Amino acid sequence: MPEAADVASAYAGARVVITGGLGFIGSTLALRLAELGADLLLVDNLFPEAGGTLFNVAPIRERVAIEIADIRDVRAMRQLLRGCRYLFNLAAQTSHMDSMADPETDLAINCRAQLTLLEACREICPEAPIVYASTRQIYGRPRRLPVDEGHPLRPVDVNGVNKMAGEAYHILFHDVYGLHAAALRLTNTYGPRMRIRDARQTFVGVWLRAVLEGRAFEVWNGAQLRDFTYVDDAVEAFLLAAIAPAATGRAFNIGGEHLRLRALAQALIAANGGGSFETRDFPAERKRIDIGDYYADDSAFRAATGWAPKIPIATGLARSLDYFRRNLAEYR
Amino acid sequence: MPEAADVASAYAGARVVITGGLGFIGSTLALRLAELGADLLLVDNLFPEAGGTLFNVAPIRERVAIEIADIRDVRAMRQLLRGCRYLFNLAAQTSHMDSMADPETDLAINCRAQLTLLEACREICPEAPIVYASTRQIYGRPRRLPVDEGHPLRPVDVNGVNKMAGEAYHILFHDVYGLHAAALRLTNTYGPRMRIRDARQTFVGVWLRAVLEGRAFEVWNGAQLRDFTYVDDAVEAFLLAAIAPAATGRAFNIGGEHLRLRALAQALIAANGGGSFETRDFPAERKRIDIGDYYADDSAFRAATGWAPKIPIATGLARSLDYFRRNLAEYR
Repeated sequence: MPEAADVASAYAGARVVITGGLGFIGSTLALRLAELGADLLLVDNLFPEAGGTLFNVAPIRERVAIEIADIRDVRAMRQLLRGCRYLFNLAAQTSHMDSMADPETDLAINCRAQLTLLEACREICPEAPIVYASTRQIYGRPRRLPVDEGHPLRPVDVNGVNKMAGEAYHILFHDVYGLHAAALRLTNTYGPRMRIRDARQTFVGVWLRAVLEGRAFEVWNGAQLRDFTYVDDAVEAFLLAAIAPAATGRAFNIGGEHLRLRALAQALIAANGGGSFETRDFPAERKRIDIGDYYADDSAFRAATGWAPKIPIATGLARSLDYFRRNLAEYR
Repeated sequence: MPEAADVASAYAGARVVITGGLGFIGSTLALRLAELGADLLLVDNLFPEAGGTLFNVAPIRERVAIEIADIRDVRAMRQLLRGCRYLFNLAAQTSHMDSMADPETDLAINCRAQLTLLEACREICPEAPIVYASTRQIYGRPRRLPVDEGHPLRPVDVNGVNKMAGEAYHILFHDVYGLHAAALRLTNTYGPRMRIRDARQTFVGVWLRAVLEGRAFEVWNGAQLRDFTYVDDAVEAFLLAAIAPAATGRAFNIGGEHLRLRALAQALIAANGGGSFETRDFPAERKRIDIGDYYADDSAFRAATGWAPKIPIATGLARSLDYFRRNLAEYR
């Protein structure tokens, strides 16, 4: 089981490549790795529909290499992987709605580019641990709670199918070629630097923004159970997944605290010291991609790595509000 | 539950499109549908690595429409789907080895083209039942036997990942857009018209050819349990899947008789009235894609459609040998 000292020594001075490195989780991971003394290369296409902004890494901008490149660009990726000691692979198309409106782009990013990236890793950095950002989306509507990794996969959107395939390529390249790949099936990750402009990452972003702008936000239904991971806890999961031998070749759920959306809405207002929300029926046109209740059984990952989330919801929401209050103009 | 009369009345006079319609299973399905009076359109790219040949449909060649087209050609497929009442979607890259050597081509055929085909169906023939040829490949190495549909999916090759995604698109387009899609996870299907030139479809083809040419064939290991479906039984499964309401929106195992490979080899020699084989260790370079024992629990499909395989192994092998003995020159 990795200790804190192992995390520090693994990454100090090591070349770490993060795809999607200017996005929400990628940039938070970069900030933490910079603190640990890693030699960072952040790759991001800065597409406006995705979550990347240079502002996300403003505090470390002078100390990291940044490449504005697309993971679909095989030649660029082959160059950028040279010398890579760890690869955190977070670049993705993440919007459910966009994946239905334009399934081919979702496929190009979430399937094809993953496959070509892994082929490049085989050749260029076959020893580098790779951690892939997967998603609870691939389960679809839970048949039982909590959802463990053996739960059947029945994605409710094209994005879910393609992320399922992207994850499976990583596991396959472990099984067949010995790449040290692992996958984390993330749930609702939230925190500073998340996309709050729209709901392309999670609805939590839209809620945060509304509260900060003094507007009421909408809660659809509100009785759904969901779990939430504060981004620092998610980042710790990535750091551990790359160095824990027991994590290699496996796909794990990452969970957190679970509560009903109505309770989350109340917690957000409490953390903000004010605000309001309206409850409405789940919109008919979105029902087909609604999954009902979900929360993860993440005991396998805890057992494999010693990971445990540390930030309670109230603290995480307070930190998020504090960050966006100071930086709102950069994110809306 | 559909009756024999329902099968006959469903297809008589109906426009049926079969992708991969000149291949092993596709052409056998076409022969049966021609017998039922269907108005057939067979689409096939006739790629030499795949199983399609015009000879496969020689008996009905004057009575069916044939288009040499690739399912990756979106414009062609949109034209060809006009008026489609039933779609049997069998076109695929099927070789495990080819998928590892050229993963992008496998992805283009087994993922991207499936997605664009389904998008075209939504628009052009949204009422047509669609039956997709999936594969037991998607399970990878069984953790328990028999394997039911709830068994975890961990494909052992790129082909398996892409077929898993292809199946998931079909189920998704049912769930989200109401397409009447079902998927059949086929196991080793064998019979007349199968590819015997090499092992791109199953090793059974290579065995058949060796026996007919008076050569010894190789049995790798031999203790593995596998199940085998005679192609006429598989064809009946496709016909039923398209018309049984309980099959819509689901992915089913299709099984058959299971036995050890050594026993199959002996049955083949008995059916041929002579021949020999050599047992050798599973080749080291193939071990990474070996799945050990497999046989399907296909009770869900039997319950949904009333299907049951009818042809015992001995009969199926005898019929296969008889066919290839008469037509060997066309297949080697």
